[in-house]
Amino acid sequence: MDNLGLITPLLRSNTAAIVTNVTVAPLYLERFAAALAAAGVQCVQVVLPDGEAYKNWETLNSVYDRLLEAHCDRQTTIIALGGGVVGDIAGFAAATYQRGVSFIQVPTTLLAQVDASVGGKTGINHPLGKNMIGAFHQPLAVLADTSTLRSLPMRELRAGLAEVIKHSLIRDVVLFEWLEANLEKLLAREDAALVHAVLRCCEIKAEIVAADERETGERALLNFGHTFGHAIENAKGYGVWLHGEAVAAGMALAVDLSRRLGGLTAADAARVVELIARAGLPTAVRGVSPQQFTALMGLDKKAAAGRPRFIVLDRLGAASIRDDVSSGDLNDTLATAA
Amino acid sequence: MDNLGLITPLLRSNTAAIVTNVTVAPLYLERFAAALAAAGVQCVQVVLPDGEAYKNWETLNSVYDRLLEAHCDRQTTIIALGGGVVGDIAGFAAATYQRGVSFIQVPTTLLAQVDASVGGKTGINHPLGKNMIGAFHQPLAVLADTSTLRSLPMRELRAGLAEVIKHSLIRDVVLFEWLEANLEKLLAREDAALVHAVLRCCEIKAEIVAADERETGERALLNFGHTFGHAIENAKGYGVWLHGEAVAAGMALAVDLSRRLGGLTAADAARVVELIARAGLPTAVRGVSPQQFTALMGLDKKAAAGRPRFIVLDRLGAASIRDDVSSGDLNDTLATAA
Repeated sequence: MDNLGLITPLLRSNTAAIVTNVTVAPLYLERFAAALAAAGVQCVQVVLPDGEAYKNWETLNSVYDRLLEAHCDRQTTIIALGGGVVGDIAGFAAATYQRGVSFIQVPTTLLAQVDASVGGKTGINHPLGKNMIGAFHQPLAVLADTSTLRSLPMRELRAGLAEVIKHSLIRDVVLFEWLEANLEKLLAREDAALVHAVLRCCEIKAEIVAADERETGERALLNFGHTFGHAIENAKGYGVWLHGEAVAAGMALAVDLSRRLGGLTAADAARVVELIARAGLPTAVRGVSPQQFTALMGLDKKAAAGRPRFIVLDRLGAASIRDDVSSGDLNDTLATAA
Repeated sequence: MDNLGLITPLLRSNTAAIVTNVTVAPLYLERFAAALAAAGVQCVQVVLPDGEAYKNWETLNSVYDRLLEAHCDRQTTIIALGGGVVGDIAGFAAATYQRGVSFIQVPTTLLAQVDASVGGKTGINHPLGKNMIGAFHQPLAVLADTSTLRSLPMRELRAGLAEVIKHSLIRDVVLFEWLEANLEKLLAREDAALVHAVLRCCEIKAEIVAADERETGERALLNFGHTFGHAIENAKGYGVWLHGEAVAAGMALAVDLSRRLGGLTAADAARVVELIARAGLPTAVRGVSPQQFTALMGLDKKAAAGRPRFIVLDRLGAASIRDDVSSGDLNDTLATAA
């Protein structure tokens, strides 16, 4: 964040709008805005309330208000400084302000650094569904400063590790084995380990998204564990489990399903569950019936024309999309969560 | 509109959402929905209030509500049936519903058929500015049925002619001369004449937009008469003058400026003003001072970094963007409106 020469050449004018929230602002806003000012960039500052509950139209509109009041034009670059929610709102504001302005992601959580900030998905929630309103709008750059992870609550660091594990499972067995060997370094926030994990996850995600930006195929692999995870978040009530925690338990279910389908050996399935557990993340969920799961997953927007699709592992480091999962196998997997 | 074989092959599923308004619905909705149903397409119907005053977040949100209540997914195609406001809202809903679904324009006003439905500009107004929130989102198709123009109020037909004249002035002297010879046929709504004008305008606009979708250069030529026109709409109060009427008077000012800059002869300038007058459109505006104009145009979002830009005619059928207009010439032009 002190090396702004990485992003200032990308700005289309000397005006930027930093969008952040009340939690991140006291930690990094002054330092970041001062560094931009020193580089000759005038900054409008927009400080949002913190939390998924505010990822809605009212908050988005407050961003528009500030941009218009400050006479920001089409050359203004919006900079998202914060976690996934800030990035989603700021990115969607950038996608729609005056029909689209540039934006840059400066993620300050592990989840955002390894996942949310890359790939151009932006949006807000609607009372009838999460992320129902949004746009694909790619950032000019993602500036991930791992030093910001020192201020991250431990629970959020662990939640971010769920997406790191996910990236390894769907694409990179070498990363998976590196995680088995180095997980404690990440939990101890050793910078070299964090840099390695963040960089490798960004590479994996960028590669997948570049091949299928609009999620007509391969990009859906990134939803590994998420179909179950969304159902868990929903069943438990949003905000009770962190997204990464629900994804972790969802991955454990997806791993169980993958084993039933013959993609994973029992030994490899156990390795995954052990790694998730070592990260301090849930490997199981209790009290959600198969009926509840089925209903909640049927509402998932990723369900294609009535035929449920699942992302499963073919082996460690390789995933595929399957629409031929038998209800028997599915129910056996779901029964483990009952 | 009875030849839906033109659009049904483009649909990605058998579900579509028709977005229209309370004025257009009684005229065409039942017929259109029945034709789609006969082609095996299930239709969600969304009927909006009529008017620019409703081109806002609340109306847009009512579209999202209906789409979500009806469980429309990413394969749903949104069809805009109506004028420019319906197209702008429906198109922006399509751009942002579940991060983007397909849409088709079925414009029912002359203004929408010759201008608004082509080019992918979508959006809504914000209390602090018109069209400040939006996206570029190209329709799969524009289905212009000139028979719908029979139900159009005469004043709106005339307003649409302003954009027809504009397209001829910036790009096609042959169309301009055709208009001089055939204007009365358009005013009498003779179908062959309407088809010729609509088709030629769509071709011109599509050509310009294809070369510069995001309006970084050439597309700005389509704003000929609009910088003045927006100021007039604003000065008179939105809705008092129709957009096309303000553009007509704005074009008269832009023609006057073009003559002062040496692009048009006095005789050609007079030909343009005469054609605008024959269309029953205003060729002058009174009661707006040069100071008012200057202030209102300074707020225009198209103003680039402080240096005012004007679209002027180099000759009939050719326009260019100029940022070297002297304040003397500008004030002389504006004084004609005082």
